[in-house]
Amino acid sequence: MIDILSVDFNKDNELIILDQTRLPGEEVYLKLETKEDVYVAIKKLRVRGAPAIGIAAAFGLYVATRDSDAETVKSFTKEVKEVAEYLKKSRPTAVNLAWALDRLVGSLKGFDGSVAEAKKLLLKEAKAIRQEDEDACRHMGEYGLSLLKKGMGILTHCNAGTLATAKYGTSLAALYLGQEKGYNFKIFSDETRPVLQGSRLTAFELSKADMDVTLICDSMANQVMKNGWIDAVLVGCDRMAANGDGANKIGTNALAILAKEYDVPFYMFVPTSSLDLDTPTGDDIEIELRDGEEIYKMWYERPMAPEGIKTYNPSFDVTPAKYITAIVTEKGIVRPPFAENLKKIKEASAE
Amino acid sequence: MIDILSVDFNKDNELIILDQTRLPGEEVYLKLETKEDVYVAIKKLRVRGAPAIGIAAAFGLYVATRDSDAETVKSFTKEVKEVAEYLKKSRPTAVNLAWALDRLVGSLKGFDGSVAEAKKLLLKEAKAIRQEDEDACRHMGEYGLSLLKKGMGILTHCNAGTLATAKYGTSLAALYLGQEKGYNFKIFSDETRPVLQGSRLTAFELSKADMDVTLICDSMANQVMKNGWIDAVLVGCDRMAANGDGANKIGTNALAILAKEYDVPFYMFVPTSSLDLDTPTGDDIEIELRDGEEIYKMWYERPMAPEGIKTYNPSFDVTPAKYITAIVTEKGIVRPPFAENLKKIKEASAE
Repeated sequence: MIDILSVDFNKDNELIILDQTRLPGEEVYLKLETKEDVYVAIKKLRVRGAPAIGIAAAFGLYVATRDSDAETVKSFTKEVKEVAEYLKKSRPTAVNLAWALDRLVGSLKGFDGSVAEAKKLLLKEAKAIRQEDEDACRHMGEYGLSLLKKGMGILTHCNAGTLATAKYGTSLAALYLGQEKGYNFKIFSDETRPVLQGSRLTAFELSKADMDVTLICDSMANQVMKNGWIDAVLVGCDRMAANGDGANKIGTNALAILAKEYDVPFYMFVPTSSLDLDTPTGDDIEIELRDGEEIYKMWYERPMAPEGIKTYNPSFDVTPAKYITAIVTEKGIVRPPFAENLKKIKEASAE
Repeated sequence: MIDILSVDFNKDNELIILDQTRLPGEEVYLKLETKEDVYVAIKKLRVRGAPAIGIAAAFGLYVATRDSDAETVKSFTKEVKEVAEYLKKSRPTAVNLAWALDRLVGSLKGFDGSVAEAKKLLLKEAKAIRQEDEDACRHMGEYGLSLLKKGMGILTHCNAGTLATAKYGTSLAALYLGQEKGYNFKIFSDETRPVLQGSRLTAFELSKADMDVTLICDSMANQVMKNGWIDAVLVGCDRMAANGDGANKIGTNALAILAKEYDVPFYMFVPTSSLDLDTPTGDDIEIELRDGEEIYKMWYERPMAPEGIKTYNPSFDVTPAKYITAIVTEKGIVRPPFAENLKKIKEASAE
């Protein structure tokens, strides 16, 4: 069972994150006290996963402004906005980051209490985001589980687990809830190069929770499908466009194409907060390019390519809607036609 | 231009290999003197690539038996056979290994000279294998180049270059010969997990030869194709069955499926020595499973998955013939129907 928290706001009012770059070897917890702490933690992937980033940013915005000397709500709000804009730049692709920060900023709109009360309001809103995420994950897990059967072989990519969220995860929530009911899934986790979220995080959290998990390289996903070992591919989503194109960790789109080739259902788990209906299609999603040293230097004992080698290191790719069997949200399962049905779900979630 | 040799039999009659596990950081050359030296060098991938393994094994068989005390050709031949059988076990999937060793053993059949002459015969045969491979690679390169145009974007996987062969490589030969003619290819090299032949070897040898090469993770191959940057996928082959199914480094089959999806030609470079017409289809090819620590421990500063994690680590996969646009051999380009046309090529190569 789950016994780890990626982002915690504890009873001493401290914002604590589990440093995910140190896993699986060490469980190191970091206290974030300034806006720079929060920016760096997100930028360096110490906290990662769309919902967890949103939660960390929300508490981070509160923590970074709670000692403000502002004497009016107006000047305090201005300061909060500036910090929010700064924090948004730490990961441009993650829509939850901007969403959570905008929500806190928005909560101050028209507020006419004291500065001290405004600060409390931010904290309340951050806590609400955290609780809603945990609830959303549990609901996504329940909907996801309804698509699965006992004993199924499952392929996962990256980490959309409890480490990426308030609790349970998005795609992995279905597996955790299944475990509680004795589903005995046989899970294959892609290592997920170059940052290795699959081996460092997913294999870590699933084996820590006593699940049956087998680690493979990304290039072996084809073989486990070809062997007939996979009954469903479950992935998360960092941002989904209005037409159902979904951005997720690099490598996801290839899995979706392979799943189609082998007639394996491909399910994308998308909290409605990651549903960005203002973005018409996947072509409109900006793909973050990261430093090429992640490919040949990071984690290694010595450089694994000649110094100065040219690289191309996109952090995400976009899976076109046509490869997605169903989209699982906390409000229900969405099937094609996605454009129409996603709009309905988004409206329902706004109610 | 090429200035490195993977396997050298020098003028002092020493068998020297470039230790490919130490690349790209260090160029370390190893002298192989015993059958155990040769076995370990092949097993540990210090020498790798189907043709280079065959060449190393052939010279290795000579070196390991040249000090034999056998007094008759019959007893010498018996000893040679035993060493050959031992060496064959170092890499079960590599058909060139058995092919080269059988060829040396076969050269002694019916031989009626002295033991000293028999030893010389083995050396002559090993040298012939080496020279034939260099010639074959150059021919494959010429045929391969005829399929390409100036300025094309090329995707490669693993290492089928000069490091894998006597010289030039198989699939990379086309790129080296193109460079001589000013083709200016824009090459993308998959890093090729878990042993990283793409980053350690292909990126190394191509950049050392001043080619335009960009390193990517295996999971990014989809994105470079989707971006429209790839005009052809060029891969090697460790063993091809009679129907055109080809075994190559894990990840190759997925590339072929993606290439089909994006309508990019997929070319497999297969020396006729790797063409195994006694094996009807790819289903009959034994896939080597390797130690899972290659996935989460090898090369890394610290283990990247929890200790004792379950793994699945197939070293090869089989690309079904239906995904292959054309097969490039040293005897010419083979197009579908492969079963029929491969048989013709194999017969031509035996002439």
